[in-house]
Amino acid sequence: MTSVNRQIRLAQRPVGRPDESTWDLTEEPIPTPGDGEFVVTVDYVSLDPAMRGWLNDARSYVPPVGIGEVMRAHAVGRVLESRHPDYAVGEVVSGSFGVTEHAISDGSGVQKVDESIAPAPTWLGALGFPGLTAYFGLMDVGKLAEGDTVVISGAAGAVGSIAGQIAKAKGATVIGIAGGPEKCAWLTEELGFDAAIDYKNESVYKGLKAAAPKGIDVYFDNVGGEILDAALSRLRKGARVVLCGAISGYNATEPQPGPAHYLSLLINRASMTGFIIFDYLDRYQEGIDALSELLTSGKMTAREQIEIGGITAFGSTLNLLFDGANTGKLVLEVGERTHDSEL
Amino acid sequence: MTSVNRQIRLAQRPVGRPDESTWDLTEEPIPTPGDGEFVVTVDYVSLDPAMRGWLNDARSYVPPVGIGEVMRAHAVGRVLESRHPDYAVGEVVSGSFGVTEHAISDGSGVQKVDESIAPAPTWLGALGFPGLTAYFGLMDVGKLAEGDTVVISGAAGAVGSIAGQIAKAKGATVIGIAGGPEKCAWLTEELGFDAAIDYKNESVYKGLKAAAPKGIDVYFDNVGGEILDAALSRLRKGARVVLCGAISGYNATEPQPGPAHYLSLLINRASMTGFIIFDYLDRYQEGIDALSELLTSGKMTAREQIEIGGITAFGSTLNLLFDGANTGKLVLEVGERTHDSEL
Repeated sequence: MTSVNRQIRLAQRPVGRPDESTWDLTEEPIPTPGDGEFVVTVDYVSLDPAMRGWLNDARSYVPPVGIGEVMRAHAVGRVLESRHPDYAVGEVVSGSFGVTEHAISDGSGVQKVDESIAPAPTWLGALGFPGLTAYFGLMDVGKLAEGDTVVISGAAGAVGSIAGQIAKAKGATVIGIAGGPEKCAWLTEELGFDAAIDYKNESVYKGLKAAAPKGIDVYFDNVGGEILDAALSRLRKGARVVLCGAISGYNATEPQPGPAHYLSLLINRASMTGFIIFDYLDRYQEGIDALSELLTSGKMTAREQIEIGGITAFGSTLNLLFDGANTGKLVLEVGERTHDSEL
Repeated sequence: MTSVNRQIRLAQRPVGRPDESTWDLTEEPIPTPGDGEFVVTVDYVSLDPAMRGWLNDARSYVPPVGIGEVMRAHAVGRVLESRHPDYAVGEVVSGSFGVTEHAISDGSGVQKVDESIAPAPTWLGALGFPGLTAYFGLMDVGKLAEGDTVVISGAAGAVGSIAGQIAKAKGATVIGIAGGPEKCAWLTEELGFDAAIDYKNESVYKGLKAAAPKGIDVYFDNVGGEILDAALSRLRKGARVVLCGAISGYNATEPQPGPAHYLSLLINRASMTGFIIFDYLDRYQEGIDALSELLTSGKMTAREQIEIGGITAFGSTLNLLFDGANTGKLVLEVGERTHDSEL
């Protein structure tokens, strides 16, 4: 086993799309745990659209990643060495370990991963923050009710694909908006969405009019931009717009226009509400229980797109999100995973 | 007494700002009430920004006014002749009588006006729909809490001036945005607002930063446009944006840009919610009681700007709203009010 630990650090803040100049690859010895600490060998790093926001030097819901700091990332790994009473060597855990091959932790924000429910990468997707985001966004912010017509943008992504399946399981009519015929076919043929709109090849406005002739009760937005605007123009009375993300504008270098049809909120007595999953910390277990139940009962399919190449592939893998080149949860495999028996 | 009844009817839908070509003056005999009906002599017609929306041939919360129809308007008048058991000649009533000198009614949507609480025109303002809009918008939609920092645009208008005074009475810090030093002085010196920002002469963004350094808990929006955008950029965590109107864009002939800073809702876990006062029908009395109590206890000042000239002045008076040329509730006096003793 090598004693070298490699990390991806923020070299400079990107203007627009991140590129090679954004990241630095650094090396240092694998850390040694102090009392009450343990070291994790990272197996899978989560790639999330929200990461783009963390690169900006702007006031937000978390501080930006500092220049020279290891890139913040959620990850799953195994305990390599432990001086913490609650974490034994070989246990599989998830946490905000960063884009690194090994991380040191005192257990803050760390969850134990139950691979009997689902494989480790799923705990970064359907049973991780994307799943929780879909669940609380739809149920709590979106106040989903049986019979609602639910529209989801970024529907083939990590959050959208789970949100749509939750909505279906709760008795809603579900319309997904995604880019390209393959993604759309996946939504309707494999995930059970009632309809899918391919925004790259058809008018979203017309697609919504056709698929949701009575209008939209819940719009779960992951993309912003023109798709948000089209959805606003098709709201029903009392609709709830859930603001989860706005990936269409994350790499923009010019100010992006706001949703011109926002007054549809007024006419339709509707609401548009933002949320951050971290605020639901004390309800995570409720969400994980509900998502696990959907998954193990077969009502929900979890899909991860696992990219290989190790942490040096982090930058190019992250950009897949902005190219719409992922289906399901995008994960980067870090190194080659050691079998438990070899530990 | 003349037997001629004059009305203002919609001649054609305006493109942009309404003008003389928008309206027709028509004459017909004063109607005769059938069984269960009564005729009202209109004394005061309410002028409201929402009227502009009713002129557009667009799906909204009420049907548009039809070409050739009497212009829809709330009004106060006296019962001239009655074959309705609940309405006696001489009683003062409010209702959607339209821009007309006399109206026939079966009592639908009609309220009796208690002039012992406030003079008749006040029942079109502080104790009418503007007051109710301010009350339910702030309390129910805005979920006003003691200690909140509340910002109100169109603050010297019919709704804004009442909303600000309610917020003050409930223990909030209140900042008004209005056009011109006179309106701003009225807000701070007479209505007790904590601060006022003159959008015609200073940066709203900087004004908000100075007057609400910790950010905004409730933003009550009557204007839309750049002022809404500035307020969005200064929200606090958990803020509520109440969409009441957007007068800045009502006469626009080009699509208006949406609020570019809408993602502040996401970062701040905030909401933006539209409402229509008609949905609160079954709670009107609660609102009127609360507003009457504020008014009679001296915690609230009602101000009406009463324009004269009769119904032929309707078009020019309506445009005062779009010029920002009114302070408080804009009312048109129709004819010369007859004293009760002369009925």
